[in-house]
Amino acid sequence: MDVMPTQFDPPSGTRDFLAAEVEKREWAYGVLRSVFASYGFEPLQTPAFERIDVLLGKYGEEADKLVFKILRRGEHEASGEADLALRYDMTVPLARVAAAYGSQLPTPYKRYAMGSVWRADRPGKGRFREFTQCDIDTLGSTSPLADAEILCAHHDALASLGVTNFTLLLNCRHVLLGLLEVFDVPEDLSDGVLISLDKLDKLSPIAVIDELIGRGLPDQSAKELVVAMTAPDATERIRTILKESEVGSTGLDEVDQVLRLVTAQVPADRIVFTPRMVRGLSYYTGPIWETEAPGVPGSLGSGGRYDHLIEQLGGPDVAATGTSIGVERALMSLPDAGAPRGRIDVAVPVLSEDLATQSFALASQARAAGMRASVYLGASGKLGRQLKWASDSGARLCLIYGNSEREAGTVTVRDMVSAEQTSVPIDGVASYLADLASTLHG
Amino acid sequence: MDVMPTQFDPPSGTRDFLAAEVEKREWAYGVLRSVFASYGFEPLQTPAFERIDVLLGKYGEEADKLVFKILRRGEHEASGEADLALRYDMTVPLARVAAAYGSQLPTPYKRYAMGSVWRADRPGKGRFREFTQCDIDTLGSTSPLADAEILCAHHDALASLGVTNFTLLLNCRHVLLGLLEVFDVPEDLSDGVLISLDKLDKLSPIAVIDELIGRGLPDQSAKELVVAMTAPDATERIRTILKESEVGSTGLDEVDQVLRLVTAQVPADRIVFTPRMVRGLSYYTGPIWETEAPGVPGSLGSGGRYDHLIEQLGGPDVAATGTSIGVERALMSLPDAGAPRGRIDVAVPVLSEDLATQSFALASQARAAGMRASVYLGASGKLGRQLKWASDSGARLCLIYGNSEREAGTVTVRDMVSAEQTSVPIDGVASYLADLASTLHG
Repeated sequence: MDVMPTQFDPPSGTRDFLAAEVEKREWAYGVLRSVFASYGFEPLQTPAFERIDVLLGKYGEEADKLVFKILRRGEHEASGEADLALRYDMTVPLARVAAAYGSQLPTPYKRYAMGSVWRADRPGKGRFREFTQCDIDTLGSTSPLADAEILCAHHDALASLGVTNFTLLLNCRHVLLGLLEVFDVPEDLSDGVLISLDKLDKLSPIAVIDELIGRGLPDQSAKELVVAMTAPDATERIRTILKESEVGSTGLDEVDQVLRLVTAQVPADRIVFTPRMVRGLSYYTGPIWETEAPGVPGSLGSGGRYDHLIEQLGGPDVAATGTSIGVERALMSLPDAGAPRGRIDVAVPVLSEDLATQSFALASQARAAGMRASVYLGASGKLGRQLKWASDSGARLCLIYGNSEREAGTVTVRDMVSAEQTSVPIDGVASYLADLASTLHG
Repeated sequence: MDVMPTQFDPPSGTRDFLAAEVEKREWAYGVLRSVFASYGFEPLQTPAFERIDVLLGKYGEEADKLVFKILRRGEHEASGEADLALRYDMTVPLARVAAAYGSQLPTPYKRYAMGSVWRADRPGKGRFREFTQCDIDTLGSTSPLADAEILCAHHDALASLGVTNFTLLLNCRHVLLGLLEVFDVPEDLSDGVLISLDKLDKLSPIAVIDELIGRGLPDQSAKELVVAMTAPDATERIRTILKESEVGSTGLDEVDQVLRLVTAQVPADRIVFTPRMVRGLSYYTGPIWETEAPGVPGSLGSGGRYDHLIEQLGGPDVAATGTSIGVERALMSLPDAGAPRGRIDVAVPVLSEDLATQSFALASQARAAGMRASVYLGASGKLGRQLKWASDSGARLCLIYGNSEREAGTVTVRDMVSAEQTSVPIDGVASYLADLASTLHG
C-alpha cells in the first residue's frame, strides 16, 4: 500500500469491491457452485458469528488471538466482555451443524460452504482480515473414495475457474509415519522432523540436514532421510523404503488407490505423489494434499482426511475429509477480463419532460428484449451531452425520441460505435430490439 | 420457537440455512441481480464491519444500541473497548464509498448492495439479528426520473421473484407538507401529526382524531384532516385541497410525474397515490413509497428520495434516492418449491474396490454430460444397500458396473423410477448419457 489510508477507507485488512470486482467474484462463485453441485455437494450457510464458547479453544491460543470478538450488548456492554465472535473458518460451524441437525442431514453429508471468514491477522500483500473461504467436505465416510472425490472436485473447481498449470501434491499421514519408523526417528522428535522435511521445497538439502541434526536427530539418520527424499529417483526410493514398514505400506496403498481413482477426472500430470509434503496441521489422519502453481504465492487450496477433528471441535464422532479452495488466490491469479463490459447496452436520452414517459417506455422495451437499459437521469436537455453520457456508460445503442421523432411516429436508433442512425416506427421498436438483442449478446 | 435452544443452535436471532433454503435464497439473489443489471445498476460490496466512528451516531441513540460492536484485539482487548462494528445497513457504507471513490464512480452512481446486516434487536417471529438487506440507490440525480426508475426496478424485482398481489403506495414529502400547511398544523406538532396520520391504515378514523387532539391539534382541524383523508373520494379531495398550497401543488406534480413515468413498467393497479402514507423517517425529501401485500406482515420494501442523508452520514453532498427490497419477507411469502429436487441425478454404486476406478470414470462421464453424479461412499458392498442410497439421494439413474458387466464390457443403466434396466456398451455410455441429459433437464 503506497497510499496513506484515509478516513473513508474500509477498515484495515478489508476491501470494498466495486462493480467489476463484484462481477468477477460472483462469476467465480457461480462456477464453483455448479462444480460442487455436479458432485452432489450441497450448500450450507451458517451465521457470520457464533457463540464465543463454540469458537474459542478449538485451534489453540495463537488462533484464538485472531478471533474477532463481539461485545455484549445493552447493560452488559460496560462489562467489556464478549459473548459472540466472527467465524474464523467454516469447519467449526460445520461441526456445530453436524451436531445440531444430525439425523436431518444425509449420510454421508457432502456439503460446501462459501463465504467470508474473519481473522485479525496482520494485513499484508494478499493477506486480508476479511476473505472468502470455500470449503467442501464429506462427513461420514471412511472410504478413500471420499478423499478421491474431494480431490476431483478440487481439481475441477480450479480448472473451471480457468486456472492452468497447477499441480496437486498428494501424500498421506501414513506415508510420513512410515518414514519416521524406517528412519528410527524417536517419537518426541516426530513433529519437528516433519516440519523440517516440509521445508525441502524452499531450503537446500544441506540446510535441512543441519536443521534435523539441530533437532536432535542422529547425523546418519538425518543424512539418509534427506538423501532419500531429494534423490532424482526419490519417489521410487521412498516407495521401496516404505515397504519395510507396515504403516508405510498402508500409506502407499492409500496414495495409489487415490491416484487410480482420480484418473478419469484429473490429468496424470496434475497430481503427483510428494512424500516430503507434510501439511503442518496435526489433525490430518489419512491422505493430504496441497496445490502448487508457479507464480502463485502460497497455496491454491489444500486439505485431507481428518477423522477426529469434527468431534474435537464439538461435533459428533464422525469420519471426515475435505478441502479448502483458495478462491481469493485463484481470482488474483486469473488475468483480468479484457475490455470491461459497459454498464448498459442501451441508453435512452430524455430530451424534455413531456417526452420522458416515452423514453421510460423505450427503456422498458429494451429490457423486455433482454438488454440492460437506462434512461438519462442528468440535468441537461442537450442531446450532445446525453450522447456523451451514453458513450461513457458503454452503451452500444441509443434510442432517441425527440420532437421530430414524435411528429414522425418513429424512434431514432443510433449505433454508438459507427454513429449510424436508423429510423424505426415506434410500434416496431420492440421487435426491432428483440432482433438486435441476439446480435448484442452474440 | 417451541423447542428449547440447545448448545448446538446458532446464536439467538440467527439461522443456519441447509441446502434447500440456500438454493432458494441463491435463486432469489440471482433473479434480483439480473433485474438490477437490466436497469444498469451495478453491484457494490463492502466489508461486514466498519470502523466504529463511521457507524455510530448516524441514526440516533436507539439505532446505536442495536449495533454489534467488535472488541479491540491483542493488548487492547482488556480495555473492553470496541473499534469496529458490524454494518447496520447498506447506506452508511454507501456514504463512505461515495466519499472514498467519488471520481472513480460513474455519475449518477446507480448501485445495488445485497448482503447481511446485523442488528441486536429482540429476535421474534420473522425478526432476525442477521438478515439480508437488498438496496438499490441512485446518487447524483435530482430528477424524478431517478425516483421513477428505482420504483420500476423495485416493482420488477418483486414481480420477478413471483410475488403477486402487491401494491406500491406512493406519496411525497411535499404532499405531506402541503397538508400540514392547508390544515394549519403548527410546526411543532408536524412530526406528531404525521405519525398519527400514518396509523389510518390500522386505527379507526375516530381513534386517529382523538390522537391528533391529544397531540394538541384543534378539534376542528383534526376532524377535517381525518375526514379528508378517509372519505371514499379521499384522494380526489386531497388533490383539490393541495392546490391551495404551493408546496402541496409541487408535491402533487411530483407524484403525478412519477405515476406517468412508470406506466410502461408498472401495471396501473399496482401503484397507488396514498396521501396518508408517511414513512416515519424524517430524512426523506421527495417521493416516498412503501409496498403492501395482503397476508405479508410488514413491508415488502420501501424507500424514497433522501437528498441530504448521504452528507449527514459522512459522505459527499449529493442528491440520492433509493429503495430497500424486503427480500427476506418476499422469500417467506413465496410458496415452497414443490417436491424437493434430488441431491443428484445419477448414482454410481461401487461394488468392489477393484471396480471403483471404473465407477469414478462413469460418474465423471455423467458430469461431463451435465448431470449431477456421485459414487457410493459407504461401507456396504451390497447392491441392494447401494440402490437404497441411490433412491434416498433422489437419483433418477443408477450406473451399475459389477463383475458381470465387466465381463460383458457393458454398464447397466437403471431407471430409478421404473426400475427398468438397460445394458449399454461401456464405450457408448458417454453418448448415451448425453442423449439422456436433455430428457432429465427437460
